[in-house]
Amino acid sequence: MENRVTLQMIQEAREAMAGVTELTPIVTSTRLGKNLYIKSENLQKTGSFKIRGAFNKIRNLSPEEAAKGVIACSAGNHAQGVALSATRLGIRSVICMPEGAPILKVEATRSYGGEVVLVPGNYDDAAAEAARLAKEEGYTFAHPFNDPYVIAGQGTLGLEILEQVPDVDQIVVPIGGGGLISGVATAVKSMRPNVKVIGVQAATVPSMFVSVRNGAITTVKDGPTIADGIHVLTPGDLTFDLVSQYVDDIVTVSEDEIAAAIVAPLEGPKTVAEGAGATTVAAYLFRKIDTSLKTVALVSGGNVDITTLSRIITKGLQKTGRIIKLTTKLVDKAGNLAHLLQVVADNGANVLEIDHEREDAKTEVNSCVVTLTLETKDEEHIRKIRRDMEENGYQLFD
Amino acid sequence: MENRVTLQMIQEAREAMAGVTELTPIVTSTRLGKNLYIKSENLQKTGSFKIRGAFNKIRNLSPEEAAKGVIACSAGNHAQGVALSATRLGIRSVICMPEGAPILKVEATRSYGGEVVLVPGNYDDAAAEAARLAKEEGYTFAHPFNDPYVIAGQGTLGLEILEQVPDVDQIVVPIGGGGLISGVATAVKSMRPNVKVIGVQAATVPSMFVSVRNGAITTVKDGPTIADGIHVLTPGDLTFDLVSQYVDDIVTVSEDEIAAAIVAPLEGPKTVAEGAGATTVAAYLFRKIDTSLKTVALVSGGNVDITTLSRIITKGLQKTGRIIKLTTKLVDKAGNLAHLLQVVADNGANVLEIDHEREDAKTEVNSCVVTLTLETKDEEHIRKIRRDMEENGYQLFD
Repeated sequence: MENRVTLQMIQEAREAMAGVTELTPIVTSTRLGKNLYIKSENLQKTGSFKIRGAFNKIRNLSPEEAAKGVIACSAGNHAQGVALSATRLGIRSVICMPEGAPILKVEATRSYGGEVVLVPGNYDDAAAEAARLAKEEGYTFAHPFNDPYVIAGQGTLGLEILEQVPDVDQIVVPIGGGGLISGVATAVKSMRPNVKVIGVQAATVPSMFVSVRNGAITTVKDGPTIADGIHVLTPGDLTFDLVSQYVDDIVTVSEDEIAAAIVAPLEGPKTVAEGAGATTVAAYLFRKIDTSLKTVALVSGGNVDITTLSRIITKGLQKTGRIIKLTTKLVDKAGNLAHLLQVVADNGANVLEIDHEREDAKTEVNSCVVTLTLETKDEEHIRKIRRDMEENGYQLFD
Repeated sequence: MENRVTLQMIQEAREAMAGVTELTPIVTSTRLGKNLYIKSENLQKTGSFKIRGAFNKIRNLSPEEAAKGVIACSAGNHAQGVALSATRLGIRSVICMPEGAPILKVEATRSYGGEVVLVPGNYDDAAAEAARLAKEEGYTFAHPFNDPYVIAGQGTLGLEILEQVPDVDQIVVPIGGGGLISGVATAVKSMRPNVKVIGVQAATVPSMFVSVRNGAITTVKDGPTIADGIHVLTPGDLTFDLVSQYVDDIVTVSEDEIAAAIVAPLEGPKTVAEGAGATTVAAYLFRKIDTSLKTVALVSGGNVDITTLSRIITKGLQKTGRIIKLTTKLVDKAGNLAHLLQVVADNGANVLEIDHEREDAKTEVNSCVVTLTLETKDEEHIRKIRRDMEENGYQLFD
């Protein structure tokens, strides 16, 4: 098996992909920053870049392998990428998913023609079952990242970015297992070595960041992240080598920063990024990178679970100072609430919600606790409101 | 003043607009429907189509008018369209807004160079102040819809759609005051009379729908709608005439349908539509129109207030059977909750939230009330879960 990824492989992948994948647009938004260009791979078929690598892997199967089919283990974007790619190539695909996988991911994978096997237990159990089926049935295993054809397929994004933003200074790419950035960096550094390629990881799961720092593949301990698409504890050996060779820097972003970077593109460019995809926007918004450079942030996918999106929005708005809850005590007599609201109104803040509670352990008889949820401009605005309330004699609780 | 809108005016507007407005993309989504093509005007500069009409109005001012500046009254998309257009043309713009306008709209309008005047009171008070200032200071009033130049500017969308989807059968357009559909219909019927043009209104504020049915301009009584961009109680005379002449049909959509049509594009094409923009998607999804025809739904804007977006998501998911809350009673002993959850799991539904309450007026001693929030596939799936729970002896409360 070939284990080098070359520019030529990436160029061939791109030709083969014509008519299968979309040339996703570059969008800008004055609200997010003047040097920020978003490569909207969330608008790709299946909602993420994964179809690129999966398609390139499957089209390179031998006739014997193709006749038997492919198998993958994924509860996420890779599942959909493999299913649709195989269907487009007329090849059977089997996808093992842990039993608790979100219904929508199961349904989406089936709608693309994949045969879903729900495996009792967690992701590791599903992976073991996929390995067992691959051996028993002769399916080819489609690895989500540590495969030269998969990496070459993802690399097509590097070629597109260089064409779409010819004067780009730096390209920012999410890192989970490292397949995406390995492909992009191989393409970019082969063609335009002066363009910087910077990786982003969730601070809670910094596996490639730590591995590169250690100079050796390192498994990090598990941590929670809303960027489930890059929730990988151990990099691949192939991707580790390519990242070590080509990538200029790796930065990390916090969960709050990711949440804020999911919200910002909803308002600015009106686009839906999933957690993993939003990490690159977070790196720009929270200045983990040099924002004076012309920057392409690769938003790798948009498949965010919508039932959690509303929770993320709330978190993101709080992080950026756009909503705040303030609790204070009022002597419960006519006009007091009106006066408090006047202080708020004088500051130009909108009241989203008022919670007015008479019985509370914190309050004396004849007083009540009021919690205001306010729409605010930023942290500075919040400080001003707090100050004015306190100067008007309202004690604030946290 | 000229009061006819001609194809030539629309064509001239389009030429003048080059480099100012974007050619917004057409997006499709297999999840939403095979005949649905979305014209993504939510991705337009300022987040809506309003810049087209505003720019065309302002560029047609006489030198004397241009020297004095323009004034508008709006707390929404028109404000931003006027402000940015005026700034691009080097002309002063003053925007009257009611005092309670959302902070973000005020900030956005200012960021585009508009001078915002916050007027105490409601929208009518702001409009009166705008009229007063126009008279006193000599500003030209930029009407949001009832103006031939504004209508011609919006009509450029009709030209774009015919070029981008040459074999379109019908074009679906939101109606508030009627400026957008008047322009689009004039362009489309002048060039391709066989292409149907269909308007959509919120069922709670069906002013043009009722006016056309009555054959006379009619003011409807005020109603609540999340589609604030088309919250207009009385059509204009010019727009009423053009709609009567050119538009094939007008349909209405409910608030629940609009909410569902905001959620669907978040998941399918990963794009953010505001209420008014989503009405056209709602008309397709809920079959208010002939969905066997190749349909372009004009999504007119994306400026949805993000603090309400999460509420809309919840509403939209409920409407489409994607989440459900079920409440039942359990004898409070070991294993009973587990058995209930097994019934749910056997149906392939995911549990998003469990609320387990011992003290409740509805329950006897020794029993408790359990409310499950479930992620489900559709209404049919919900019926099946309800049936299975009842067959297993769980009484469901509403």
